Amino acid sequence: MDRADAVQLDDRDPLRHVRQRFVLPDGMIYLDGNSLGSLPHGVRERLESMVDVEWGHDLIASWNTHGWWDLPATTSAKLAGLVGAGPDTVSMGDSTSVQLFKLLVAAARLRPERSVIVTEPGSFPTNSYIASSVAQLLGLTVRWWDAEHSPDIRTVLDDDVAVVALCHVDYRTGWMHDAAQVTAAIHDAGAITLWDVCHSAGAVDIDLSGWDTDLAVGCTYKYLNAGPGSPAFAYVHPRWHDVLDQPITGWHGHADPFALERDYRPAPGVRRVEAGAVPLLAVAAVEAAVDAFDGVAMADVRAKSLALTDLFIDRASARLEPRGVSIEVPREHRHRGSQGCLRLPDAYGFVQALIRRGVVGDFREPDRARFGFVPLYTRYVDVFDAVEHMVAVLDEGEHVRPENTARAVVT
Amino acid sequence: MDRADAVQLDDRDPLRHVRQRFVLPDGMIYLDGNSLGSLPHGVRERLESMVDVEWGHDLIASWNTHGWWDLPATTSAKLAGLVGAGPDTVSMGDSTSVQLFKLLVAAARLRPERSVIVTEPGSFPTNSYIASSVAQLLGLTVRWWDAEHSPDIRTVLDDDVAVVALCHVDYRTGWMHDAAQVTAAIHDAGAITLWDVCHSAGAVDIDLSGWDTDLAVGCTYKYLNAGPGSPAFAYVHPRWHDVLDQPITGWHGHADPFALERDYRPAPGVRRVEAGAVPLLAVAAVEAAVDAFDGVAMADVRAKSLALTDLFIDRASARLEPRGVSIEVPREHRHRGSQGCLRLPDAYGFVQALIRRGVVGDFREPDRARFGFVPLYTRYVDVFDAVEHMVAVLDEGEHVRPENTARAVVT
Repeated sequence: MDRADAVQLDDRDPLRHVRQRFVLPDGMIYLDGNSLGSLPHGVRERLESMVDVEWGHDLIASWNTHGWWDLPATTSAKLAGLVGAGPDTVSMGDSTSVQLFKLLVAAARLRPERSVIVTEPGSFPTNSYIASSVAQLLGLTVRWWDAEHSPDIRTVLDDDVAVVALCHVDYRTGWMHDAAQVTAAIHDAGAITLWDVCHSAGAVDIDLSGWDTDLAVGCTYKYLNAGPGSPAFAYVHPRWHDVLDQPITGWHGHADPFALERDYRPAPGVRRVEAGAVPLLAVAAVEAAVDAFDGVAMADVRAKSLALTDLFIDRASARLEPRGVSIEVPREHRHRGSQGCLRLPDAYGFVQALIRRGVVGDFREPDRARFGFVPLYTRYVDVFDAVEHMVAVLDEGEHVRPENTARAVVT
Repeated sequence: MDRADAVQLDDRDPLRHVRQRFVLPDGMIYLDGNSLGSLPHGVRERLESMVDVEWGHDLIASWNTHGWWDLPATTSAKLAGLVGAGPDTVSMGDSTSVQLFKLLVAAARLRPERSVIVTEPGSFPTNSYIASSVAQLLGLTVRWWDAEHSPDIRTVLDDDVAVVALCHVDYRTGWMHDAAQVTAAIHDAGAITLWDVCHSAGAVDIDLSGWDTDLAVGCTYKYLNAGPGSPAFAYVHPRWHDVLDQPITGWHGHADPFALERDYRPAPGVRRVEAGAVPLLAVAAVEAAVDAFDGVAMADVRAKSLALTDLFIDRASARLEPRGVSIEVPREHRHRGSQGCLRLPDAYGFVQALIRRGVVGDFREPDRARFGFVPLYTRYVDVFDAVEHMVAVLDEGEHVRPENTARAVVT
């Protein structure tokens, strides 16, 4: 494999034309789309129209004439297609933390005779924090599943388990659960499943319906490219639509918001997950960002993600392992998300040195350099060139230079 | 009083120059800024810069280089000045419903030996719904205070009351509580106070510190002009900063978010109210919208609000009462927000007919036509002309024409 081979892979890439839908700064190899996706051109246009025409000119009338009232629902319906969900099974508006809180309380209420929430100690921190908080609030217990050392989930399941809340892809290692299989095991034990697909939505051909999961949450600012802090989504399987009882009973989740009744009556369907007013500028950005997937098959996205990460493993094995760097990318495709880590003692300086060269990844404590591969805009040649920059950083000792090792700020 | 007098009032208005900071469509008299504030020009510029430069070009680096991580805090500090709060006492990000939920649970936890939440049956619906939901979650009881018929709050206070959550201004009638006095009465009974200032923030010279309230929430899309569904804020008195225990323990409220610990440790100060990632496009809009108050004294805002509503009462008394319309605007200044209602049997058609004439208010069930007066951009002449349009609607019978009475959609 040389650079010409990478160029050839790009030439044959069925998603090649999609890259032009994104703003990509000149001279930058952006491998941090798993943290903040690149700006789709369509978002700029959509925001201009929402601000100038809808808000600025049409003002309050836009709730009707421009469909503001339904915008979270219509956007959710578009997004549903990217995660294998039916059109009326997804809601959006609040942050992942808030969505998780709402659904975790609701899940526990679906199993009132049970007293345990299962989650992983290596979850993204919010997931652990919210599980603990909900347990405290409802008088439940958190049981920690150490999936890394005890991979069979059945070892932590019994008749006490109300809900199992897991991250589909590990935010550090990129390790991915076999969600369909794990969901089936949890259902066999009579518990509710809640998947967090923040680190896979938009890069993996997720099939929420096919998994038969009860609930799911996911963010939109990573592989879905909807901008910093953009609203998260919540999925509810239709079997729970009429009974789901979430605790943040704001007026947008009411069956008839403008009847202005004193007592709460949840809306039918997934809309009962909505709480208060949602930030419509941010939802409009989600809508336009989802439109950047127009005509794109998620199977092609997944295939390219695997090919990009395969290439990363190949190149890193050949060029970085001999220089003392460990590669942390799940080797089995079925357990691989769309990111990879390199582990090395000077990972912080390594990431900073790469950023100076225009290769943008991120650092995660204590020793991980993390890189995300976004099938919609990452090229094979980007992966090839990025690894060559890494070689140069190590060979020149840039990763141990003071300007790169000084930790001024969080990243 | 004739039209020339109104023009003269505008000429002498100390806030006259502020109007040009807003986009105001030609030919429209916009009296619905209490529902959705007009677009400040600065928001357009701020969003362009955030989207094109910060997100589009600088990408993930913007969390540091453009202060994204602190943007909710820096924006909150600016906003604090408009509601009489210290700079490190306000947090922002989630919707009013979510902020209310977080603070109401936290408030009850500050009084664990007490079992009652007091609120008003005539609150905005979300406030009633959330109070009931929190009560259910924590095993508490809601006690409804009918302030209209039993104005002395002491009649509902006793040693069982943990928290009293009230709307500062009634969303229908514009009636405003004497917040300092009511807060003192609640504190005398040993309970926690939580004010919702959605319908007063930006139009009334609110003094959260001076009231000595424990907690408050408010939205930013009404008189603060930050756009549809823009994020709400939460205020926490410094005396609770180190003990406040809110339940949506997302990573942004953690003392050290990037330490990625398994257990939650709340951030010091008001920052512990933050939950997950906040929609930064929407927060940037709040920041720019707050900047539209630059150099504006809230005392001048309040004085103009009262003068505008006085004028509305005068003109409506002279011109509309004789035509069978009742005026619902609190007569006492100390109990008046910045809006007014007219009550008439055909209020829906009346509002629709006015909209056709370019006078935009809104309808609230069952018989209210509601108008908001925004001191930053509403002119005295707007009030004068609006009432003349109302006269014309009634005299021409436009309010009972089928095209105006047909209820196609929610407003």
